[in-house]
Amino acid sequence: MEKIRRNERMSAMMKILADSPNRIFTLSYFCDLFGAAKSTMSEDIDILRDVVRQFNLGELETVTGAAGGVRYRCSVSQPDALRFIQALCGELSGTSRVLPGRFLYYSDILSNPKMVQGMGAILATAFADQAPDFVLTMETKGIPVAMSTATALGVPLIIARHASKVYEGPAVNINYVSGSGRIETMSLTRRAVQEGQRALIVDDFLRAGGTAKGMADLMHEFGATVVGMAFVMATREPEKKRVTGEKSLMILSISGDDEETATVTPAPWLLERQP
Amino acid sequence: MEKIRRNERMSAMMKILADSPNRIFTLSYFCDLFGAAKSTMSEDIDILRDVVRQFNLGELETVTGAAGGVRYRCSVSQPDALRFIQALCGELSGTSRVLPGRFLYYSDILSNPKMVQGMGAILATAFADQAPDFVLTMETKGIPVAMSTATALGVPLIIARHASKVYEGPAVNINYVSGSGRIETMSLTRRAVQEGQRALIVDDFLRAGGTAKGMADLMHEFGATVVGMAFVMATREPEKKRVTGEKSLMILSISGDDEETATVTPAPWLLERQP
Repeated sequence: MEKIRRNERMSAMMKILADSPNRIFTLSYFCDLFGAAKSTMSEDIDILRDVVRQFNLGELETVTGAAGGVRYRCSVSQPDALRFIQALCGELSGTSRVLPGRFLYYSDILSNPKMVQGMGAILATAFADQAPDFVLTMETKGIPVAMSTATALGVPLIIARHASKVYEGPAVNINYVSGSGRIETMSLTRRAVQEGQRALIVDDFLRAGGTAKGMADLMHEFGATVVGMAFVMATREPEKKRVTGEKSLMILSISGDDEETATVTPAPWLLERQP
Repeated sequence: MEKIRRNERMSAMMKILADSPNRIFTLSYFCDLFGAAKSTMSEDIDILRDVVRQFNLGELETVTGAAGGVRYRCSVSQPDALRFIQALCGELSGTSRVLPGRFLYYSDILSNPKMVQGMGAILATAFADQAPDFVLTMETKGIPVAMSTATALGVPLIIARHASKVYEGPAVNINYVSGSGRIETMSLTRRAVQEGQRALIVDDFLRAGGTAKGMADLMHEFGATVVGMAFVMATREPEKKRVTGEKSLMILSISGDDEETATVTPAPWLLERQP
């Protein structure tokens, strides 16, 4: 085999690691792939760790012990996160996206790959320490962002449905109070969740918190623990939600009688300076 | 600024390019980022192109002209695609995933990040030459794979719904014949699609093709062209579908009276040797 140079090894390693966030790759894996000695690979990884940090591309973490190796973690700095969300708020504020009934149109944002990747990376950074086993969302609009968060965390996504489906097998159904105040049903296949697992709830929109509360109740039925709740957008009103401790990316308020105007601002926790 | 070495530049460039498939980055962009001369960056890109090819990580393409630069394209080789799908078929075949009514449980696959990334990359490779402007799917189960395909192509995802939603604004509704033979409604906000755009339809499941036909009809209403149709799974029966020219990743047949067994095989086009 032709000798592979450091710049070649490092570029390939960057792509392989970043494609599988949170997955631990052993040193031997890369030694075999590149035909290089362990000491050489260790040096490569040390340099790569600095590159990733210097250019704000995430984090490389060395894991010691028998199952040790190196893994890539998605990590967005607080200034980068704030800049990204502020740009989004600018795009969403104003009158052109306000629909009759004081609804905000932002479905395009919720399924735009760059937007969804950015939001998912910010949420994954915020909840990585909670070590969720999976991300849970309720169909439909939140699925892309929830998927992107799950990808960045390297965990599966689980999707609750409005009704049991024949192709999902035995399911647990619960009732919850939806945004419009009606009693609705939420359903999740029994195969999806094991007792004792840790759930991160991700959804697109939080108004009163009925659906979010429903998802938390659903996890309770499965014996799973909710380790966090995250939303793309939360409304300013009502201030008191049915859930607590949630993190949203943006706060929405719509005001005006004649021509209604949306004001979208970054959520307070994003404004906090990190230590 | 401290001088940035080639291995550092190349690793960072790899991550930046791969994070935005199909986006053209100018040489100047990287010159500014790394404080390097154009000739140096050209050399970096030449080496990186070979690395990406050697390790089957996709493709780097140099685009000439005024808006020229370099872009990353997702590209899965035919043997890699086949290997990936064969492993998936092994996982899905057998008796344990067959549900009453001859349904196959595979929702877990459809929202597993690694699976979804793999399937999206294969579909993006297959349809990149059709240059779609967006990916269209019908809620719910196909959304993650459709999102992943859109991400790999660097285009937006558009999600058709079962009914018009207040938060999506004016919508076009059409009726279609669903898998169960009933007449159902499909709805898409007017803002989503412009006349003359090119649509790639991606969904999880194809039986008779009623929903797929509905999506094609919907695109017709918008004056958009359908440049391709892709499905994760197609049933062997009925052989004649309501749509033609579709590409699926896997073919499903369920047989047996007492204990039903699923046989899942790679779709024929994946078996073809590429030139």
